[in-house]
Amino acid sequence: MEKEIIFEQVTKMWNTRIAFNQLLGFKITEMQDEYAEIQFNWDDKLMGNPMQKILHGGVTASVLDMVGGVVIAANMISRIQQPSKERISEKLGKLSTIDLRTDFLRPGRGETFIATARIIRHGSKVAVARMELHNEKGEHIAFGTGTYMV
Amino acid sequence: MEKEIIFEQVTKMWNTRIAFNQLLGFKITEMQDEYAEIQFNWDDKLMGNPMQKILHGGVTASVLDMVGGVVIAANMISRIQQPSKERISEKLGKLSTIDLRTDFLRPGRGETFIATARIIRHGSKVAVARMELHNEKGEHIAFGTGTYMV
Amino acid sequence: MEKEIIFEQVTKMWNTRIAFNQLLGFKITEMQDEYAEIQFNWDDKLMGNPMQKILHGGVTASVLDMVGGVVIAANMISRIQQPSKERISEKLGKLSTIDLRTDFLRPGRGETFIATARIIRHGSKVAVARMELHNEKGEHIAFGTGTYMV
Amino acid sequence: MEKEIIFEQVTKMWNTRIAFNQLLGFKITEMQDEYAEIQFNWDDKLMGNPMQKILHGGVTASVLDMVGGVVIAANMISRIQQPSKERISEKLGKLSTIDLRTDFLRPGRGETFIATARIIRHGSKVAVARMELHNEKGEHIAFGTGTYMV
Repeated sequence: MEKEIIFEQVTKMWNTRIAFNQLLGFKITEMQDEYAEIQFNWDDKLMGNPMQKILHGGVTASVLDMVGGVVIAANMISRIQQPSKERISEKLGKLSTIDLRTDFLRPGRGETFIATARIIRHGSKVAVARMELHNEKGEHIAFGTGTYMV
Repeated sequence: MEKEIIFEQVTKMWNTRIAFNQLLGFKITEMQDEYAEIQFNWDDKLMGNPMQKILHGGVTASVLDMVGGVVIAANMISRIQQPSKERISEKLGKLSTIDLRTDFLRPGRGETFIATARIIRHGSKVAVARMELHNEKGEHIAFGTGTYMV
Repeated sequence: MEKEIIFEQVTKMWNTRIAFNQLLGFKITEMQDEYAEIQFNWDDKLMGNPMQKILHGGVTASVLDMVGGVVIAANMISRIQQPSKERISEKLGKLSTIDLRTDFLRPGRGETFIATARIIRHGSKVAVARMELHNEKGEHIAFGTGTYMV
Repeated sequence: MEKEIIFEQVTKMWNTRIAFNQLLGFKITEMQDEYAEIQFNWDDKLMGNPMQKILHGGVTASVLDMVGGVVIAANMISRIQQPSKERISEKLGKLSTIDLRTDFLRPGRGETFIATARIIRHGSKVAVARMELHNEKGEHIAFGTGTYMV
């Protein structure tokens, strides 16, 4: 299988079959070896503060965790010598977050939010990604660092 | 106003008026100066993995962020000399998470989940809490550290 | 070899042959499967602030990193089926810190400092420890969380 | 006083009067509003591993903490309306690290090490910096995030 097709299939599966991502409206919009992107729109149910219309900190942490996982997954898949459905499935089954740091920079205001991730450490056991969250105006809302078991 | 009554009112407000907490089913069950607790039940919509019935990492990060915020809020309220509704409201309006570290220890399996928080650093500007997540069998699923602006 | 003897030998080696620990005066005083301890005394060269006699934040981070490593190492050694010098050496050669979070609670004042570590996550690839730093009066100066490759 | 002159004086003071920085050989080589740099050379006393010639993790954490502090200090000074020696001294006396995350990417090998910091969050109470450590070949050894009280 070609890498691009695999990425497309994983993206589709994760966009439609991870219940929590659907609940929050997260859509993977880019999945590459070194870069991933998730978008979602403001929805009142994501509100974390009854007095202000801003994202719950948990939404921010969730999307950063997820987008970091996507870039790590892309990288894991790229390293499989002869990728088959079973081999990819087995590999992705091992992916899990070890720890996640989220830094909140600005109140999460906006219409559309874009979370991006870049891979920082590749490894056979552990990988590290850095993530950012911006709104549609380009305002930097949060960033994070995630360490993942691969 | 007596502290216990204030805590009860804040608990009630946060349990009913923070949209994201309701979406996830979080219920504050304890709010004290030095200790807070949130409970929630398994729900398929919290699932993070299409192949295994485990919590999305974002749910874990969300509840740790929230329960840390509750104990910090309790502590802030306790320090107000003559607490009035306005004074409390004003104070709580300033509470925000600066950064959050989540450590994932075990897959998030269970029927009921209990998140707990203890305050570690009190301060006039910044406070720090440590949080833990267990399931109903007492299995330790995650812990975290949150730094909050107060 | 018995575990206690191995721990004694590793302690001795690390106390005498890690240059940076000697420079800072760190002494491993406990090395057990689930618990480790390092002590060191105030020395003017550890000062981080020309105006106040307090520890440099780097000293705090260093001792937390180190004491976490000691408890993880003890745990790694305990899991070796038939521990030989070569096997232990090979295993310890793989131990490295992936990431470290340090939370500074109070200015690092004191005569003697005690850093302690407990293991939180055991694993075949990755282990996690939580660490604390107190002074001789029992004042809590800092805590930390370290993720280690094992 | 002009900002550049103040930065020069603070640099000189910190390079000569912070005992721990001198012990480790840290030299501030850039101090600007949004960017800071520290350099140091390999020295056997910085060794963290008796078997390999690599930096102790504590050295890495120390220099990241320090270089983050330098850029935050520069930023604090820039915000003082009428900077006098007393006002600067008073301000810098309030600067302290709240928490520090260090991510270790590669073994700390090299002849010369360059730590850099950029400010990410400016605030009247809390500021955040991101830091990196490279060696003279441009190899990326570590990065970090520090939250500081200002």
